[in-house]
Amino acid sequence: MIPEQDYHMSPEEFRRWGYKTIDWIANYLENVENLPVLSQVEPGEIRAKLPETAPQKGESFEEILKDLDRIIMPGITHWQSPNFFAFFPTGISAPSILGELISAGLGIQGMLWATSPACTELETHVLDWLVDMLALPEHFKSSSAGGGVIQDSASSASLVALLAAREQAKADINNLVTYISTQAHSSIEKGVKIAGLRRENLRLIEVDGNYAMSPDALQQCIEADIKAGLTPCYLAATVGTTSSNAIDPIPELGAIAQKYNIWFHVDGAMSGTAALCPEFRWIHQGLELADSYCFNPHKWMLTNFDCTSFYVRDRTKLNQALSIMPEYLKNQATESGKVIDYRDWQISLGRRFRSLKLWFVIRHYGIEGLQHYIRKHIALAQEFTEWVKSHPQFELVGNPPLNLVCFRHKGGDEINQAIVNSLNSSGKVYLTPTKLDQKVTLRMSIGQATTEKSNVEQAWKLICQVAESVEANT
Amino acid sequence: MIPEQDYHMSPEEFRRWGYKTIDWIANYLENVENLPVLSQVEPGEIRAKLPETAPQKGESFEEILKDLDRIIMPGITHWQSPNFFAFFPTGISAPSILGELISAGLGIQGMLWATSPACTELETHVLDWLVDMLALPEHFKSSSAGGGVIQDSASSASLVALLAAREQAKADINNLVTYISTQAHSSIEKGVKIAGLRRENLRLIEVDGNYAMSPDALQQCIEADIKAGLTPCYLAATVGTTSSNAIDPIPELGAIAQKYNIWFHVDGAMSGTAALCPEFRWIHQGLELADSYCFNPHKWMLTNFDCTSFYVRDRTKLNQALSIMPEYLKNQATESGKVIDYRDWQISLGRRFRSLKLWFVIRHYGIEGLQHYIRKHIALAQEFTEWVKSHPQFELVGNPPLNLVCFRHKGGDEINQAIVNSLNSSGKVYLTPTKLDQKVTLRMSIGQATTEKSNVEQAWKLICQVAESVEANT
Repeated sequence: MIPEQDYHMSPEEFRRWGYKTIDWIANYLENVENLPVLSQVEPGEIRAKLPETAPQKGESFEEILKDLDRIIMPGITHWQSPNFFAFFPTGISAPSILGELISAGLGIQGMLWATSPACTELETHVLDWLVDMLALPEHFKSSSAGGGVIQDSASSASLVALLAAREQAKADINNLVTYISTQAHSSIEKGVKIAGLRRENLRLIEVDGNYAMSPDALQQCIEADIKAGLTPCYLAATVGTTSSNAIDPIPELGAIAQKYNIWFHVDGAMSGTAALCPEFRWIHQGLELADSYCFNPHKWMLTNFDCTSFYVRDRTKLNQALSIMPEYLKNQATESGKVIDYRDWQISLGRRFRSLKLWFVIRHYGIEGLQHYIRKHIALAQEFTEWVKSHPQFELVGNPPLNLVCFRHKGGDEINQAIVNSLNSSGKVYLTPTKLDQKVTLRMSIGQATTEKSNVEQAWKLICQVAESVEANT
Repeated sequence: MIPEQDYHMSPEEFRRWGYKTIDWIANYLENVENLPVLSQVEPGEIRAKLPETAPQKGESFEEILKDLDRIIMPGITHWQSPNFFAFFPTGISAPSILGELISAGLGIQGMLWATSPACTELETHVLDWLVDMLALPEHFKSSSAGGGVIQDSASSASLVALLAAREQAKADINNLVTYISTQAHSSIEKGVKIAGLRRENLRLIEVDGNYAMSPDALQQCIEADIKAGLTPCYLAATVGTTSSNAIDPIPELGAIAQKYNIWFHVDGAMSGTAALCPEFRWIHQGLELADSYCFNPHKWMLTNFDCTSFYVRDRTKLNQALSIMPEYLKNQATESGKVIDYRDWQISLGRRFRSLKLWFVIRHYGIEGLQHYIRKHIALAQEFTEWVKSHPQFELVGNPPLNLVCFRHKGGDEINQAIVNSLNSSGKVYLTPTKLDQKVTLRMSIGQATTEKSNVEQAWKLICQVAESVEANT
């Protein structure tokens, strides 16, 4: 029989391959700018290079790293490229990567306070820090009746908020009505479906010229639903919609929610982070009316996915919606009532030590360092906006409040789609389109950690070139 | 204005601190055996050491690592200690940690095939490998109408299975009935709550002397529900329950599910991994009747949390329950119909590159290496069983099929609770109790990567000593 040490890596080997892996990442991040942003492989191309069956005997780590380069890397779309302007940014940084690494090395579970008190307490603490850092309402702090928790994503945050809302409503599930704007993120519609509410009881409220939810339309809709014998339950507003970065009018919407006793959730997934800077805190005006709120440090705050900061005004309501206590999880700390068990704040039982990376990021950059990137990205986007405005063939769509610029070629959908396809297949930039007013619209989302002015200039130059060439061919 | 390079870590600094972090983990894992397994801090003790507010200016990584040791480590319960016998194991290993590290360094999103084709294709491929490695039914392979996906946890797996079941039932949500045994994991009850089904329509089916679900009781219950005008919708069976590792009779339960057209989900969260070894594949007998199945490589297969392998027989049913397609996610690859977009297989939109660590683990250990640990843990548990049997003051509870031994002191609940408290506060081992037949029962869960015979022997010696001392004091 082979002795065990032939299977586990020895500490010396772990050190050796650990260093190599660190080098691999350092090299990758130094060179990512030169790689095609959007992977250019065809469906099935990666799988075709992988062996049909798993190896019977272990292989060397050297072989594994070789195959990473040979097989996997051509199939990577480089979200960390400074030329990535698609979707929303997904922040990573050196301290965040090392925080993830330590979390992986500790390999603990944070489902209960007792299963690693530091995992729970650091999370509570750092989420309290963020309340101050973003000047969020005090009722989101753990010293109040509310508090914060890390969710894997804004999808889960809006779902658990909806579950608390459903619990609060205490009415037949078939009668519950939820309200979002036509511009809200698809995950909220998905959440409504998951929570078992009727799809036909989801209201897509119309928006104004800036793609922000209309309070009048909302109020009318609620009145009609009440007349029809339905129970308004949940209103989700957005600070920075996915398509166009629209900021819903939180004060007006919040007042309506309060009037009708509707749970008011505010989703600031990407844009919330802008409130690190006092000059952008206007985006959160009215947030004191919110029952729950989330923003994603994993988007624009240099923190690896997954890391959504989610806050509730009344943690009891959330826990009531999510708590089940079996015998095998009972423990002295929980019974003392003195601790938080975060399993009662989320969908799953298990949870990773995610606050570590967030703590590392905040400490490494300091508030000042984090503000620097927000200001830089917004300034770049505003500059880009001027370029679009002054170009004869392009038009601005909406009024970019922060770091996302929506624009389109005046030549119509086909030309715009052709421009995007051509840009993305060039490998030099990656942009994702959307539709606004039923028209194909280009989105320039500026928020990657390493994006510099030169990247934005180069992207704009390329956009203009591609547009000319597409014009010439139509 | 401070130039930007003063905020980001330079590649050289990243290398330097990356090596230090690798060393930190290597040292930790070499010494974890000597640390108190269950953290001994009091509620609030960790937070008290953290500064009230976030730093305005960035701090050195050296300071951060110092505070990790000084503030965080006393609040860690050491899940990677070879003396950790609580809950279920949570596997980590060197290749898995390095896989997580690379995933963090790449910082990609796997929500769509196009957002990184390799993330999707490697996941599909490795989950197909696992079908062969565990000899699971062929209908779980991606080449069939079904397929596999990584979920964050078995909680999410049983929830998405329930959502597919709810969709398939096409009946009023208030009439849908779900069936689990009294021994099923709490996450399934939580899932029923999340999915909006009525708590009073969740049936807890009674179990036999080995804590396995009774098919007769199930059948009677279904018949009664149908008579009452309700719609049976979802049956979740367990291969290795949390409390006692009971194996529900899958063939009989599956036949009943088929007869009544009920979605049949099988949860093999920890124990499923045993099927790596041909001699333990009997646990999955009847699995060809399952509509969905999951097991957690993050428990007993040396892979970092989160990593649940979830399979469905009919992926269309799952996707119908979870798919929403907004404009900003549309892309050429999706529209071609030739690719998998895993966002339609899970709750959230975003997803990490989790198959990387799984691929690293399988390649590093090979099937042979993974089998080695399963066999060792089961042999140790069976040996422990004999020690319990031959001790005059202890009795075995149930018949341990694999690596979890349930037992109790014959002196009653108070003595058993006192034994657990005393063991855990010693810091030398960590065990979590449960209740079986309404009696406090000790659980010896053997499955940590580095647990050796000496650790199990030492734990047993300590249990006997503590029992004697508790006996003497009562």
